[in-house]
Amino acid sequence: MTDNLTTLIEEVADATKYSTPDSKDTLIRILNSQEANEIALALESLPIEQRTEAWKNVAQDQRLDILVEMRSDPRESLLDTMPIAELDSLFNNIAASDLIELADTLPARLLDRAVRAMDTLQRSYFEDAQQYSEDVAGRWIDHDVLVLPNNAKVRDALRLLRRQLPDYVDCIFITNRAGHFSEAIRISRVFGSPDHVPLVDLAEEDFSVINAQEDAVAAATKVQRSGFSALPVVGENGKLLGRLDIGNACELTQEYYENQLMASAGMNEDEDLFSPIVKSTKNRAIWLGINLLTAFLASWFIGLFEATLQQVVALAVLMPVVASMGGIAGSQTLTLIIRGLALNQINAANRNALLKKELSVGALNGIVWAFVIAIVASIWFDSAMIGVVIALAILANILAAAAAGVCIPVILDKLKLDPALSGAVVLTTVTDIVGFVAFLGLGTLLLL
Amino acid sequence: MTDNLTTLIEEVADATKYSTPDSKDTLIRILNSQEANEIALALESLPIEQRTEAWKNVAQDQRLDILVEMRSDPRESLLDTMPIAELDSLFNNIAASDLIELADTLPARLLDRAVRAMDTLQRSYFEDAQQYSEDVAGRWIDHDVLVLPNNAKVRDALRLLRRQLPDYVDCIFITNRAGHFSEAIRISRVFGSPDHVPLVDLAEEDFSVINAQEDAVAAATKVQRSGFSALPVVGENGKLLGRLDIGNACELTQEYYENQLMASAGMNEDEDLFSPIVKSTKNRAIWLGINLLTAFLASWFIGLFEATLQQVVALAVLMPVVASMGGIAGSQTLTLIIRGLALNQINAANRNALLKKELSVGALNGIVWAFVIAIVASIWFDSAMIGVVIALAILANILAAAAAGVCIPVILDKLKLDPALSGAVVLTTVTDIVGFVAFLGLGTLLLL
Repeated sequence: MTDNLTTLIEEVADATKYSTPDSKDTLIRILNSQEANEIALALESLPIEQRTEAWKNVAQDQRLDILVEMRSDPRESLLDTMPIAELDSLFNNIAASDLIELADTLPARLLDRAVRAMDTLQRSYFEDAQQYSEDVAGRWIDHDVLVLPNNAKVRDALRLLRRQLPDYVDCIFITNRAGHFSEAIRISRVFGSPDHVPLVDLAEEDFSVINAQEDAVAAATKVQRSGFSALPVVGENGKLLGRLDIGNACELTQEYYENQLMASAGMNEDEDLFSPIVKSTKNRAIWLGINLLTAFLASWFIGLFEATLQQVVALAVLMPVVASMGGIAGSQTLTLIIRGLALNQINAANRNALLKKELSVGALNGIVWAFVIAIVASIWFDSAMIGVVIALAILANILAAAAAGVCIPVILDKLKLDPALSGAVVLTTVTDIVGFVAFLGLGTLLLL
Repeated sequence: MTDNLTTLIEEVADATKYSTPDSKDTLIRILNSQEANEIALALESLPIEQRTEAWKNVAQDQRLDILVEMRSDPRESLLDTMPIAELDSLFNNIAASDLIELADTLPARLLDRAVRAMDTLQRSYFEDAQQYSEDVAGRWIDHDVLVLPNNAKVRDALRLLRRQLPDYVDCIFITNRAGHFSEAIRISRVFGSPDHVPLVDLAEEDFSVINAQEDAVAAATKVQRSGFSALPVVGENGKLLGRLDIGNACELTQEYYENQLMASAGMNEDEDLFSPIVKSTKNRAIWLGINLLTAFLASWFIGLFEATLQQVVALAVLMPVVASMGGIAGSQTLTLIIRGLALNQINAANRNALLKKELSVGALNGIVWAFVIAIVASIWFDSAMIGVVIALAILANILAAAAAGVCIPVILDKLKLDPALSGAVVLTTVTDIVGFVAFLGLGTLLLL
């Protein structure tokens, strides 16, 4: 998905700029030759006018697949241009898995019409899925499972396989009469065995099962690491509801990482390249507001030392050096601990040892860089004492940063707040304040 | 992998703290009941002394699997405690896929011995893999492929499947007489067809193939999105070398995201919770040094306005507010663009429109927050003019941040530098400098 997509986007963009009959034909030809996934990415990358123009030329039979692949803002921009009649025909007999993807973006009335136009089985799948919030496995259940009863034999399995073998199926699931998941049989074991062997004799040992209320991303990771192409999803009573296959699992983890990245900058996960301007502004404003509060807080601490700053301007010039060194060193510790928390490797047993180790690394780096910065500062401002002041402040800030880098994510985690999202803001607020107070405080003590 | 692992680690930690015979038995029992993956995580989470103690109690037959799962620093710490005789027996007849994981950590002499003790086929796999750098697909080739010649029929496929069906296999690959990849046949299609049908009649259309020199992570994503459980990997001449299966693909993308996260904070991807202190210090020092240079650069610009700062202390107190608002706003744009670049959605066709859109959002947020900050600043320092100065500086900085957030990653990308790694440093340097210069410059013009 590299140069092909770049070329595709450029060709679509060129074709939509100049509305000649020739370029229209080019556009149609280009679009019809690509996968829904690629067309979705290409459409998302176009400014709204060109996107709408390109959309007119997308074949009807591809439209639903493309809409399912798109992010919500660009999708909405296209749905808004489509007449009701077309939407009705698009959503007629829609599959549950597709509607689940679209449900959050569709206006309520359209969603209702779509649900009523579904066939009975798909509607039941859809309504079952909607009982679960989108962050648990139950929302993402796939129904392509091969199931046989307890007393089935190898010949029954072979007959079933001759009729159907969906994607990502490497096991047949056995259920009891109440529909509860009982065993999993590898298809590879079915082949090697005589027809009369009971399937339960070939059952896997210690086969993992996913609970519908399990966190979706944790469940996805379980599937990816299991060595199997799918794991069964069961309800609270053990009833087999369906499966989570590795294809869906990969999509879930991929989206998770993207969302984490966006959220760490205070961006809404749905924000897209050409999301509406006012909407983008509002989404981003919240994060800017939070950071403004922390910035004013730090400024308030600086304000306590106005008198000192008035007399020793060098302190105002060098302040950012102290703050940023603490921030960077703290972020390093923070990142390491966040990774450890995500892997569940941090707990009461090793926290103190971790803190000690991070303080040691902080002390070493603190001493080295305090020395370097002291030399530069004392030469720059022709004052050995300024060198001493900044050296002590740097050392104090880097040590505080190490401690904060360990404690902050651990505390956030205990409060059930995701440290990957809020950890950096809290950390840099702490390192800024400690840096400014240490530097200006020592400056007041030693330079006036 | 949640409470189980936490409990495991706590139990192991407790058991290693008190070296009674009872706790030793507990430890052995605990360790023997877990997966290699979980034991590896548990060992990584222990301080070195306790880790070494726990290792003594790990069953011999699990040791290799656990070492393969561990990161390099903790792995090295354990290898160092093992006598040569034990290492020799551990690496005797090792599989190529395991040695590939370990190769970077083993001292050269040990690696040589291991290679010489391998069986011929595994050694050829290992040596083939080593021809490729670790960031291309060729290094991660799996050899569990089902291959048949051009003229094979359904009955030949069924016979092959009865003999073997490895994990993650959903297709049989067809090669010509020169060993070049030719077609892929879904196993599900084999079942539904009569014995005499030539396999090539059932071939998939437009089947994706991976080139051995392709970027490993891009190849992994290709596999995950293909709908298949594995894709074939071919050499330059089209020769079928093996496959990349979805299990490996998930590991590759998982590691990629973890490494990106670490690298964005200037951390070496191999750094672990209890990596040796001096090693950690050195690894982190480089990033700290780079950031120090950018901090001094920003300070130099502040230094140009020493006279102004001496007269208007309020400027020193409010400086960080201007700098941080630009930094946060710029990071939001940067994150959006970086995601777009990763998906190949950014190019000459939409760059200008993107820049315009980001500048618009920047202008809106800039005006709103400039206003808010101006009110607070003018009340705090009892001066309407300070409010005007900071308002203009905030607006200028947020606009500059929007432009930088678009241009910097695009330029870095053109220079083949990963914007996810270096983008933030460059951006915050720019927004700091612009913020300080705008604020102090306007202050000089309007407040003196």
